[in-house]
Amino acid sequence: LAAETTSPAFTITTGALLAHWQGHRRVTRRVIEAFPEDKLVSFSVGGMRPFAGMAFEMISMASGGIRGIATGDWATGQELMHHSGDPVPGTREALLRLWDETTDLIDSVWPRIPPQRFQEVDTAFGMYEGVIYGLLLYWIDNEIHHRGQGYVYLRALGIEPPAFYDRS
Amino acid sequence: LAAETTSPAFTITTGALLAHWQGHRRVTRRVIEAFPEDKLVSFSVGGMRPFAGMAFEMISMASGGIRGIATGDWATGQELMHHSGDPVPGTREALLRLWDETTDLIDSVWPRIPPQRFQEVDTAFGMYEGVIYGLLLYWIDNEIHHRGQGYVYLRALGIEPPAFYDRS
Repeated sequence: LAAETTSPAFTITTGALLAHWQGHRRVTRRVIEAFPEDKLVSFSVGGMRPFAGMAFEMISMASGGIRGIATGDWATGQELMHHSGDPVPGTREALLRLWDETTDLIDSVWPRIPPQRFQEVDTAFGMYEGVIYGLLLYWIDNEIHHRGQGYVYLRALGIEPPAFYDRS
Repeated sequence: LAAETTSPAFTITTGALLAHWQGHRRVTRRVIEAFPEDKLVSFSVGGMRPFAGMAFEMISMASGGIRGIATGDWATGQELMHHSGDPVPGTREALLRLWDETTDLIDSVWPRIPPQRFQEVDTAFGMYEGVIYGLLLYWIDNEIHHRGQGYVYLRALGIEPPAFYDRS
């Protein structure tokens, strides 16, 4: 999203934005839990990645992203966990542990971010220029996109996915 | 999203929100185009709906949704196209025509929506209470979610999907 300034504006509280992000992350965590462990790291459709790889990418973007938002110090694309050669966690428990560490990191860092930071233009991961709230929406959208793919994997495995609308 | 008022706020222009929505809708339109016509209305994985049904739901929520945002006059859930017994369009051209009519409807109605409307609480489709921008984000998220499923269908068909990141 560009920092578009020629039309009228409305306000969003930083708390609502955090709730939006963490609400989606709770749904995704339930998708990770819904996979049988072996399928989480091995099953795919159409030659795509197993869901563990997608979830690892989400963790990497979220943890590197919140650091960049809070400090202006961005990991480069190469340094992001999912590009750096760090292996995708091989067990559901290891993946959920990383997930929960990221959840705690976001919650602990968030109150220190000044609200005007969300309207600054920055270059995420040394590559993606945009206004901060737009960059964050991109990571959330990326998570929704891949989580939707995880829903297909679960359905193909005969497993009922968690409710999309339940962000609790 | 609840109308959360106890934390500091930042602003989003209505133009940026429109660009976000229509950018996603351009990607989804390319996904519709990427399907061979017979697969669009028949192919699925794991017992899910064909992508034409998902796209019809998106059209229904977007067209009913923009009307509700602009006028406060919401179609009920029963009246929404995808619940009312209206058939899913049986051809790609008919689906794209509905898609483009919705695009034009959104663009034509949008400038008449006062910015403060996005922060009002309303009950979408007689069922879903929330602040207007949060309701809109929900429809966008729902579109991203199902579009991600369409990507799996395309991959399973051996077709390269359009780039997720290209909203142009």
